[in-house]
Amino acid sequence: MWSVPAREPAAIAHGGDLGGLRKAYPDAPEPWLDLSTGINPVPYPVPPVEASAWLRLPEASEVHGLREAAASAYGAPGPAHVVPAPGTQILIETLPRLVAPARVAVLGPTYAEHAAAWSRAGHAVVESHDPGALADAQVAVIVDPNNPDGRTLPLSERLALARAMRDRGGLLVADEAFADLEPVESLCPHAMPGLVVLRSFGKTYGLAGLRLGFAVADPGTAERIAGALGPWAVSGPALAIGRAALSDRAWRAAAARDRGEDAARLDRMILRGGGRNVGGTCLFRTADFPDGPDLYRRLAEAGIAVRRFAERQERLRFGLPAGKDAWCRLSRVLK
Amino acid sequence: MWSVPAREPAAIAHGGDLGGLRKAYPDAPEPWLDLSTGINPVPYPVPPVEASAWLRLPEASEVHGLREAAASAYGAPGPAHVVPAPGTQILIETLPRLVAPARVAVLGPTYAEHAAAWSRAGHAVVESHDPGALADAQVAVIVDPNNPDGRTLPLSERLALARAMRDRGGLLVADEAFADLEPVESLCPHAMPGLVVLRSFGKTYGLAGLRLGFAVADPGTAERIAGALGPWAVSGPALAIGRAALSDRAWRAAAARDRGEDAARLDRMILRGGGRNVGGTCLFRTADFPDGPDLYRRLAEAGIAVRRFAERQERLRFGLPAGKDAWCRLSRVLK
Repeated sequence: MWSVPAREPAAIAHGGDLGGLRKAYPDAPEPWLDLSTGINPVPYPVPPVEASAWLRLPEASEVHGLREAAASAYGAPGPAHVVPAPGTQILIETLPRLVAPARVAVLGPTYAEHAAAWSRAGHAVVESHDPGALADAQVAVIVDPNNPDGRTLPLSERLALARAMRDRGGLLVADEAFADLEPVESLCPHAMPGLVVLRSFGKTYGLAGLRLGFAVADPGTAERIAGALGPWAVSGPALAIGRAALSDRAWRAAAARDRGEDAARLDRMILRGGGRNVGGTCLFRTADFPDGPDLYRRLAEAGIAVRRFAERQERLRFGLPAGKDAWCRLSRVLK
Repeated sequence: MWSVPAREPAAIAHGGDLGGLRKAYPDAPEPWLDLSTGINPVPYPVPPVEASAWLRLPEASEVHGLREAAASAYGAPGPAHVVPAPGTQILIETLPRLVAPARVAVLGPTYAEHAAAWSRAGHAVVESHDPGALADAQVAVIVDPNNPDGRTLPLSERLALARAMRDRGGLLVADEAFADLEPVESLCPHAMPGLVVLRSFGKTYGLAGLRLGFAVADPGTAERIAGALGPWAVSGPALAIGRAALSDRAWRAAAARDRGEDAARLDRMILRGGGRNVGGTCLFRTADFPDGPDLYRRLAEAGIAVRRFAERQERLRFGLPAGKDAWCRLSRVLK
């Protein structure tokens, strides 16, 4: 009957959920400083939401307005290339269920949900460390800029991979969740059959609770994905707020500048704390520490949550602090 | 590569989108009175939403709180039986992609999205008018109370169907989108393997733009469905508002009483307007008119949108007006 496994593989460790940490470190000072995510800590100022956005079913014209704003913000050829979704996570879960059983190669190490979702949907998944080997698969997945190390492939290399996948009837999934504030060239302007680009809204705009994300693809593929989500997947408030925020170029430029300065400051603090900077983006920095597990514990005892990695004990990922107090709290541990 | 068709079947006609009507009837008075949906026109008073609900990723504890409130409101055995989703529509789209190719029987005529979604996912779908014939399929779909005619099967009959499907390894999908305010017995307390019950939040609470709905199932099936949506499918505001509203028994009891009175008033108005009442629920009434297409046109010219049915020209479905002006506008046409 069911085509999915009875039990999901063990849940993947994520940032952003402090419940477990509060239990493990009951004496840590409240409120916790949550640096375990890559979410902009300085959110877009939420404009007033009309009451009707909560009440009515979203209208097609509102969805179209958001698609236009997103196409323009991401440099996609047009609104027909854009699929809004309630967060990119649901796109990561849904895409594998729209594809016939395939050999899937994920360029790793990276955000673990991609490999997990393709596996859950019954595909044969390998993690590859060599970008050159991806084109041998039927589905290739890259996260660019990569989470957690910020690695990015030159546009020419990503474009060549997209074209190779297209020409052999395959699929390239390019997760550009952290591209918004980076000086990287997006694949969105180069939408073509066999290419799906994912863009996150909540991370850049600091509105993760709103649940909004996008797939950018050729119109036929976009229609396939939109069909799988149905006509009202995105809430009325998300349609209105997303449209306003994506149209605000000045805010995004200022955020790129300010968060870039924060990231440089965080790098200096990590260095002073004995860390070796590995990379990252404007919204998180990743570093190796000779005493990684011990530092994780000392941070937690000080009520500071960061992201650790089961497979690399020395590695920690830091989101950006916001405000003087937050910077001081982190500085007191990283000294 | 893709396991879904390149082009979706022609979009299904829905209520709630006035764009097309405004174009077809440019001289109709504004604002339009939208009676084309079955959404409660007297919404739950939205409590203030903490800013953090927009900003943070929803925490597991918040999702759990909503599951508890929903389990209690729907009479499900416990929170592990409940899957929150961004609206029931995405559950209708997702379920067919979790099931191996099957023979599907939909008890019709009913809400057209069920048959469409199972077809799109590659299943063999028939519409059956005989409840007794459903058990021959591998997947049976019922909408109870039914949209648009309000038909409901006795609980004993629905339970027998659920048990028959379970015993032969099949699946019964019972869409109880309109059950909240009705004096009908739900299948939710009887969760068992092979049974998935769908419940809508936005219709009952008049908050369709919030996007919130639920699947109720045995814990193993609930985990399968939750896994397909990922950990953050529901927005922070929907988690908070949903929990508050579902815990408010007094509001729901008053809504059932008040909307029931409205429905009776609407029935009388329809009768006076020459209609033959077919049935419905507290949130919509369906009737046949000898001059259906002409009445639809006259309503539209008066700026009133109702639901019509391509396959039954004499049939119209009316949502509830709210407020004296709205009732008067409708009364002026139905006289």
